[in-house]
Amino acid sequence: MAEQEETEIVNYLFQRLHQLGIRSVHGVPGDFNLVALDYLDPAGLKWVGNCSELNAGYAADGYARINGISAMITTFGVGELSAIPAIAGSYSERVSVVNIVGVPSTKSERNRVPVHHTFADGDYSVFRNMSKSISQASITIDDIKVAGREIDRVLRALPTDMVLRKIPAQSLGTPIDLDMPPSDPEAEVEAAQSIAKALYAAKNAIILVDVGVIRYRVLAEVQEFIDRLKLPVFLTPMARGAINEASPHFAGVYIGDVSGPEIQQAVQSADVVLSIGPLRSDFNSGVFTNHTKTKRTIEIHLDRTKVGYSTYLHVGMKSILQRLLNSVDFRKTHYPESIAFGPIISQSINKGDEHINSTNQDVTHSWLWTHVGDWLQEDDVVVAEIGTPSFGIMDTRFPKGVTAITQILWGSIGFSIGACQGASIAVRESDQPSRRVILFVGDGSFQITGNEISTMIRHGLKPIIIVLNNDGYTTERMIHGEDMMYNDIQPWKYRKFLKAFGAKKGEYKTYAVENRAEFQNLFMRGNEFSKANVIQLVELFMPRKDAPHGLLSTIEGMTNFNAKL
Amino acid sequence: MAEQEETEIVNYLFQRLHQLGIRSVHGVPGDFNLVALDYLDPAGLKWVGNCSELNAGYAADGYARINGISAMITTFGVGELSAIPAIAGSYSERVSVVNIVGVPSTKSERNRVPVHHTFADGDYSVFRNMSKSISQASITIDDIKVAGREIDRVLRALPTDMVLRKIPAQSLGTPIDLDMPPSDPEAEVEAAQSIAKALYAAKNAIILVDVGVIRYRVLAEVQEFIDRLKLPVFLTPMARGAINEASPHFAGVYIGDVSGPEIQQAVQSADVVLSIGPLRSDFNSGVFTNHTKTKRTIEIHLDRTKVGYSTYLHVGMKSILQRLLNSVDFRKTHYPESIAFGPIISQSINKGDEHINSTNQDVTHSWLWTHVGDWLQEDDVVVAEIGTPSFGIMDTRFPKGVTAITQILWGSIGFSIGACQGASIAVRESDQPSRRVILFVGDGSFQITGNEISTMIRHGLKPIIIVLNNDGYTTERMIHGEDMMYNDIQPWKYRKFLKAFGAKKGEYKTYAVENRAEFQNLFMRGNEFSKANVIQLVELFMPRKDAPHGLLSTIEGMTNFNAKL
Repeated sequence: MAEQEETEIVNYLFQRLHQLGIRSVHGVPGDFNLVALDYLDPAGLKWVGNCSELNAGYAADGYARINGISAMITTFGVGELSAIPAIAGSYSERVSVVNIVGVPSTKSERNRVPVHHTFADGDYSVFRNMSKSISQASITIDDIKVAGREIDRVLRALPTDMVLRKIPAQSLGTPIDLDMPPSDPEAEVEAAQSIAKALYAAKNAIILVDVGVIRYRVLAEVQEFIDRLKLPVFLTPMARGAINEASPHFAGVYIGDVSGPEIQQAVQSADVVLSIGPLRSDFNSGVFTNHTKTKRTIEIHLDRTKVGYSTYLHVGMKSILQRLLNSVDFRKTHYPESIAFGPIISQSINKGDEHINSTNQDVTHSWLWTHVGDWLQEDDVVVAEIGTPSFGIMDTRFPKGVTAITQILWGSIGFSIGACQGASIAVRESDQPSRRVILFVGDGSFQITGNEISTMIRHGLKPIIIVLNNDGYTTERMIHGEDMMYNDIQPWKYRKFLKAFGAKKGEYKTYAVENRAEFQNLFMRGNEFSKANVIQLVELFMPRKDAPHGLLSTIEGMTNFNAKL
Repeated sequence: MAEQEETEIVNYLFQRLHQLGIRSVHGVPGDFNLVALDYLDPAGLKWVGNCSELNAGYAADGYARINGISAMITTFGVGELSAIPAIAGSYSERVSVVNIVGVPSTKSERNRVPVHHTFADGDYSVFRNMSKSISQASITIDDIKVAGREIDRVLRALPTDMVLRKIPAQSLGTPIDLDMPPSDPEAEVEAAQSIAKALYAAKNAIILVDVGVIRYRVLAEVQEFIDRLKLPVFLTPMARGAINEASPHFAGVYIGDVSGPEIQQAVQSADVVLSIGPLRSDFNSGVFTNHTKTKRTIEIHLDRTKVGYSTYLHVGMKSILQRLLNSVDFRKTHYPESIAFGPIISQSINKGDEHINSTNQDVTHSWLWTHVGDWLQEDDVVVAEIGTPSFGIMDTRFPKGVTAITQILWGSIGFSIGACQGASIAVRESDQPSRRVILFVGDGSFQITGNEISTMIRHGLKPIIIVLNNDGYTTERMIHGEDMMYNDIQPWKYRKFLKAFGAKKGEYKTYAVENRAEFQNLFMRGNEFSKANVIQLVELFMPRKDAPHGLLSTIEGMTNFNAKL
């Protein structure tokens, strides 16, 4: 027998990450992962080196939302636990992050040595057990065949003494198959026929695109389907950016009772609702007010398809979409001559302005988010912190090609700054490196993870960071305790941080925007600001206690929903 | 039957916290804890309001190390997971922190509503299960009687709809009994006789004080015991500050092979070693090189006492110490005429200086930590970040009454800044409010949790913050990859942060110290710096790759230990 070529486990892993399209790896060095880090560079992987493991986790999430997958490395116990809220967030939001933890040697664990970063009780398993319960995000990775699953299992907790052990390198020659398992062909044929029949009979069908379309990578198929069906398309909050909002078929963002009446009417009166990739959660559904009649609804999920009351198991999203593209006779479907884009939040009832004098020039949420839409450019990456930015941006119509990053379901404030850093690196490594990355973050969130701007500076990343300074935790104020001190925060000098984090003169710019005229002057002044080749931070002063209508409606919806439980 | 007085659960809880001596509560507001926060003030509790839940956790830990117990409040999912590394640290280091989490309503959980801050899978239990595995820190709290245990159980996960439910207020009139369960009296008598006999026979006995003495609050008993026995006393790294190091009986810090040869000799040649409150962990023991012969060793644990090979179960620490104080005939014990204080780390073999030119004026670790000892004052609180500060400070002899705060076992960098904030509040609320709080933190650690300095400014706290700027992760450099980029960090302008965090002119001071003369000039200039009434930050430049000998010896010890496993 010929001798097999061998390679270190760590090299095998890193080669695999590279094959999966990862080029930069996030994380923080620590005693139990240092040796592994030496193997990044030879495998073609760059080390980012974040300010904290929490930031690294958020950054890996942002990187994955651009790149499809990402990886991060922490050390045992202290490091891995710090990343847990971010890893849980990726799991919650169905984002693929490979979480690598350097752990003490297998001998050390077997002998129950009371090492540091433990409880000195000889139990090393407590941390990996905790991670397990937030790591069915490796559902995505679990779906790949044996080699990939093997890697992933090893990746999840790589003991320090295992790092340099050799294993056969042979299978590195075969790429990991990331395809979904095939559909049941007969079930799929029947499901497709049933869908086609419903579409032919419909007089005013609509398409509802949800987050599964992004996470399960069927954007191209869905866009083609929309272009050929020419039906009105609505997006859920989590699906923002999934399809071209500049397309004539785009009709708005549907958030149940939180949407404007035109949108509610359009969705509720449809005789067929084709829902692709739905995810049911409170903030994605106007607090569960987005019901459509089951008998009129078609749902396409990752691994099953439902037509009215019939569920076709093992009929997968990508496969049935391709079959529909090939089998539907698009001449037989009906579509409207033109589609009105309704305001997502009806401006006429905007409660956000009740708190302030509407004649003044303050930058209010009701004013800001439509104007942001005028300023955005094609292919921008827009990162919106959970809270007023994520609710406000529902009012912004995106140009073609915009990718939106937020955390509607997990909702961990501080997420956006890490995500902005990771997304910026992923953009730079992509085939569209000149895409702008724009961050909207509140002051309270900035205080959690603002240090990750340091990593942006360190790597020469040039996002536009817009800090919404409205003097405290505004989302919390709207929920309870509007004037209570626990919703106040320390007033920071936000414009001082780029310099404090080590940005050099000429390599950064900061701005203060205190009213609408200053906003227009800065944002519409052309390329000087909008296409600057340096990192920029705008401190945008907004009235205390002003909030987007979408947030206020959602809070009201939560109260109503809880009262009825 | 007379009607019982009732009170809201949340009020009952907060009253109990107040009774336990808590005055300030750490945490971050979030949608599921806001209503509860309204009840803090009426219960006499102040809200701190930290920059992040991680910081809140570290601050609660620091507060508890001064005050004995602390409490923190986070919100469901996102908030509680962010605090997990800190809570795990308190558990690991046996520090009592009450961790209160505001969770969604019981109805919401019963109906498995896919709310935000979940995985939208209807499972609300995943987070509390994770917390359970790091919360036998509530071992300490579990030992109290029924009323307290009842509170604690409710505290651990307080549903939002439960907050305002009423329960009988009656038992609030009875203080929670925090005493340990009583010893088995006959076993205790026999153990005490056995210990006395060993002490009478010994010619050169020593006392080894470990962390249990601090955590289980027997400081007064142990100090009296030492003063009456007049035996040489050694401290472990985790027990720093437990006894008066200015006392003539103090002989040094014992860290096995990491200690200087004089100390090793003194401990190993003792004919009786009385070890009080021992905790076995790598960094607390010179990587397990601190063995003393079992037949010569007496160990006093929280709930058992061991004399040679005999273990006396249910003979508790506080109880047996009191019995010994009353029953030992101190005229029959032998003690040396004088006790030499050996340098903890033998200066003559200090490897830390190998890297640098010893004739220059750089502030090296071998120089710094003994000079720190000259500058410290009685009753200072010294917070040392894990890494070069925690290892370096082993060379510092503390004046009387110093409390040392570090994290030898858990070792999570970033801990010290939060802990400094919490300790500063606890000191202000104590009967010694003028104690100085002094923080030693490295640049890498500062980048993780430096934002918590904002909370210090917000509350008018005035610690002295000494940032050891040695250009990267020095501890990691010493372990592996001395010159690898993954051990580099972004160079921050550390002196700019006080202002950026909102400190007002005249209310803060910053300094740069680049050499020994500048150090002496600043630190020894008298009260202007040393007793300033403002928050101060010193950026102390140290040579890259210089490290305390204790760290280098420990790393060497780890390598040797692992090779023998």
